[in-house]
Amino acid sequence: MIDITLLGTAALMPLPDRALTAAALTCCGRTILFDCGEGTQTAARRAGVSLMKADLIALTHYHGDHILGLPGLIQTMSCLGRTEPLAITGPQGLHEAMTPLIALAGPTAFPVRLIALPPEGLAMDALHAHWPGDARLSAFATEHRVPSQGYAFTLARPGRFMPERARALGVPVKLWGLLQRGQTVEFGGVTVAPDMVLGAARRGLKFVFTGDTAYCPSLVEAARGADLMICEATYALDEQAARAEAFGHMNFRRAAQAAAQAEVGEAWLAHYSQMIEDPEAYFENVRKVFPRARCGRDGMRKTLRFAEDDQQLTINS
Amino acid sequence: MIDITLLGTAALMPLPDRALTAAALTCCGRTILFDCGEGTQTAARRAGVSLMKADLIALTHYHGDHILGLPGLIQTMSCLGRTEPLAITGPQGLHEAMTPLIALAGPTAFPVRLIALPPEGLAMDALHAHWPGDARLSAFATEHRVPSQGYAFTLARPGRFMPERARALGVPVKLWGLLQRGQTVEFGGVTVAPDMVLGAARRGLKFVFTGDTAYCPSLVEAARGADLMICEATYALDEQAARAEAFGHMNFRRAAQAAAQAEVGEAWLAHYSQMIEDPEAYFENVRKVFPRARCGRDGMRKTLRFAEDDQQLTINS
Repeated sequence: MIDITLLGTAALMPLPDRALTAAALTCCGRTILFDCGEGTQTAARRAGVSLMKADLIALTHYHGDHILGLPGLIQTMSCLGRTEPLAITGPQGLHEAMTPLIALAGPTAFPVRLIALPPEGLAMDALHAHWPGDARLSAFATEHRVPSQGYAFTLARPGRFMPERARALGVPVKLWGLLQRGQTVEFGGVTVAPDMVLGAARRGLKFVFTGDTAYCPSLVEAARGADLMICEATYALDEQAARAEAFGHMNFRRAAQAAAQAEVGEAWLAHYSQMIEDPEAYFENVRKVFPRARCGRDGMRKTLRFAEDDQQLTINS
Repeated sequence: MIDITLLGTAALMPLPDRALTAAALTCCGRTILFDCGEGTQTAARRAGVSLMKADLIALTHYHGDHILGLPGLIQTMSCLGRTEPLAITGPQGLHEAMTPLIALAGPTAFPVRLIALPPEGLAMDALHAHWPGDARLSAFATEHRVPSQGYAFTLARPGRFMPERARALGVPVKLWGLLQRGQTVEFGGVTVAPDMVLGAARRGLKFVFTGDTAYCPSLVEAARGADLMICEATYALDEQAARAEAFGHMNFRRAAQAAAQAEVGEAWLAHYSQMIEDPEAYFENVRKVFPRARCGRDGMRKTLRFAEDDQQLTINS
C-alpha cells in the first residue's frame, strides 16, 4: 500500500492556510517528497509526515516556489541527526540549480546525491532496501516555461503464488518466498522461474504528480490509469484557459479534461493561484468534466491499496 | 507610536505552531523586519503584517534559521509588484552571506541594497520619507558563535512646543510646524532654533531585538530602559545555563536576569528550542526573576505609545 499526502496547494507564494504545492508518498516506511518550496518541511510536520525517512526529493522544475525549502529541510535533517543518504532528482539543469541551495544548507553528516532517473524509471530499492522491489519512479516530460517534468510512481504486483504448481515442481517451501518476490531459484540441479509458479500479473498501483505544466499529451499518456493524480490547476476560470496556457499552466477545466482523458481513478487539483480564495467554489463545473476530481487541500491524504478482488481488477491476464 | 509584532518564536527549525523567530516593527506605515527564516513571510501574513512596506531587513546573524526565508520573500515582493528599494543590514560578512541568497531570488524590479548601520544608528527617514525624523536604528554587539548583533530602535520625542515663546519671538504660525519637527527657521532676518520654542526633550520609545546571544554586558547596556525587548531564550531549564552559554544562547532565567538588569518595560522571551513543548509552563520561575517577562507567542503584538503624562515620564529634564 502507498500513502499519499498532499502537503500544500499554493502557487507562487505560501499563504497562511495554503503551503506551497508539494506531496509526500510513503511506502513501507520510506518516503519520496515531490517538490520542496519554502515551508514544505513545516507542512509535512503539520500533516504528520516525517521527512527523515525521505530517500528522494523529486523536483518538477527549479522555480523558487518549488525548491526554496530545500536548504532549510536539509539543515533540519542535519539537526535531527540524519545519517542516511538523500537523493535529489529533477529535470535538466539539476546540478546548476542544486549546487547553491545545497551549499546554503552547510555541511551535513549525510551525503546529498544528485541523480537522474533512468528512462525505464528508478527501482526505488536502489535507494533503500525497505522499498519493495516492484516500486519504481519515472519522470515524464511536461510543458512549462523552463525545463520541467512530472513523475509517475508505480508499484507492480506479481501474479498470485500457486502452491500447487510449486509443489508439483518439487520446490522446497523455504524457496517459495523468493519466487513470490520475483526471483528465480535453483535446487538440486533444477531451475524454477517465478512465472512458473505465479499467476498472471495483477493490477498494481500508480500515482502521478504533474508539477507545473500546460496541458500536453505526454501528461495524459503518463497518467493513464493512475489510481491518483495530483494535478496542477493554477487558474480557476474557463476564460483563463489562454492565460494559463501562455504561462505553462492549466485552468481547472483543462486539468479535469486531462484527468478524464487519462482515466485516472481520482484527481486532486492543486497549485492554486493566490487569487483563488476558495477553490471548492469552482468544483461544480470541474466535476461535470470529471466526476472523480477533488479539490486538493493541504494535508489531504489517501491510502492506495491493492484491490482485494483480484479477478475483477486483474489486467494483462 | 510603534507596532511590534512577534512573528515567530522557534529556534533552529520551524514547527507547525511556531514559526522561526522574527519580528516586525511598524511606524507611520513603514516596517523593519528583524530576521527572516524560512516561513517568515507566511508568519507575517498570518499576523496581518504586510512586508511590502518593509524598508529594511535587519539580520542578527547568518545562521539558516534566521535568513533562509529571504529568497522567497524577495520573490514574493517581486510577484506582488514591489518597486520600492529594499535594504538589508547585518553584522560582518553581509555581502558574502547575502549574495547567494539574493541570486536565488532572481531578478527583481526593485533594488536590494546591502547597508551597514553607522555607529550612531541609521536615521530611518534616509530609507523612506514616511519614517519620522526621530526614528533611528542602531546595532549592538552580541555574543554568538558567529558574528552577530542585536538591534535597538528608538523614536525620540522632542520637547513640548510652547506657542507663547514662539509668539514672543514673532515666529509666523506657518513656521511653527518646522520648529516642532526640529528644524531651525529664519524669517525677516531672525533665526529661531527649535530649543528656543520647545520644552525639554520628553521620553521617547525604544524597542530592542536581541537575536541569538549569550548573556553579555553590551546587551544589557543596549537594552537599558527599553519599553519592550524581544529576547532570545533558547533553553527553559536552570540547569541548561552552561549549555546555553556554550552555544551562545541564554536560558529563561538568564534572559529574565538581563531584562531585569536593563530595567526594560516588558520582555518577551522567544527563540525556543524545539525541545520546549510549552514555554509558558516555565514562566512562574521567570516572573520571579523579572515580573514583566512574558512568554513570547507567534503573532503577539503590542503598540508602544508616547506617555500621555509627560511630567511623570520625562527624562533628561
